[in-house]
Amino acid sequence: MTDKDLFNLHDMSQGIRRELATGVNTRIFPGEQAMLSVVRIDPNAEGTLHSHPQEQWGVMLEGSAIRTQDGKEFAVRSGDFWRTPGGVPHTVKAGPEGAVILDVFAPPRDEYRKAGKGFGNS
Amino acid sequence: MTDKDLFNLHDMSQGIRRELATGVNTRIFPGEQAMLSVVRIDPNAEGTLHSHPQEQWGVMLEGSAIRTQDGKEFAVRSGDFWRTPGGVPHTVKAGPEGAVILDVFAPPRDEYRKAGKGFGNS
Repeated sequence: MTDKDLFNLHDMSQGIRRELATGVNTRIFPGEQAMLSVVRIDPNAEGTLHSHPQEQWGVMLEGSAIRTQDGKEFAVRSGDFWRTPGGVPHTVKAGPEGAVILDVFAPPRDEYRKAGKGFGNS
Repeated sequence: MTDKDLFNLHDMSQGIRRELATGVNTRIFPGEQAMLSVVRIDPNAEGTLHSHPQEQWGVMLEGSAIRTQDGKEFAVRSGDFWRTPGGVPHTVKAGPEGAVILDVFAPPRDEYRKAGKGFGNS
């Protein structure tokens, strides 16, 4: 392992920055087969409904949220994690204390390999 | 999302159980493009050096450990995460308080789809 493959969830100097929506900011870590995204969501901030062909997993590291996926809403809190199959519409709205979510994309989402804004192609 | 795609890191009733080594136990959650593994390591317990073609990411959720990868040792603690390219030999030894590590495999490791013992083919 070299330093280029070792990171910390809380080191804000690391990762490719992307403002997914107002108050929903992430840092992207691309691999060859998977891509990690450390998303910080301000209190009560929310994304927009979108989908992509890649499989996604989300892990709630801090806080709470309402996860919307495939037309249903789920209350999620720290320690919960979930799978989002490719092509399934989804979004999230943080609870009153905000949220930190680790997302995994497999395979990587090419549109997230550079800094930018938005959720990419829906 | 259905209940079958919503899990919790601490719910020991969920996942496919595997004893990777003495004191190194995991619960496996297979997807189509990625597979998650929630590994609990007893204090000072350790795995064995192995490799596999799939890319792996590890996220230290609790505790500390010495991560060995590609012949080098790294001290890792809660919040650290790392990428292990396919084919690179690696293992881990927990610190005195033990460790909980979330591993991600992409693509999934077929040998982990059923309960069992060991790290699979090395």
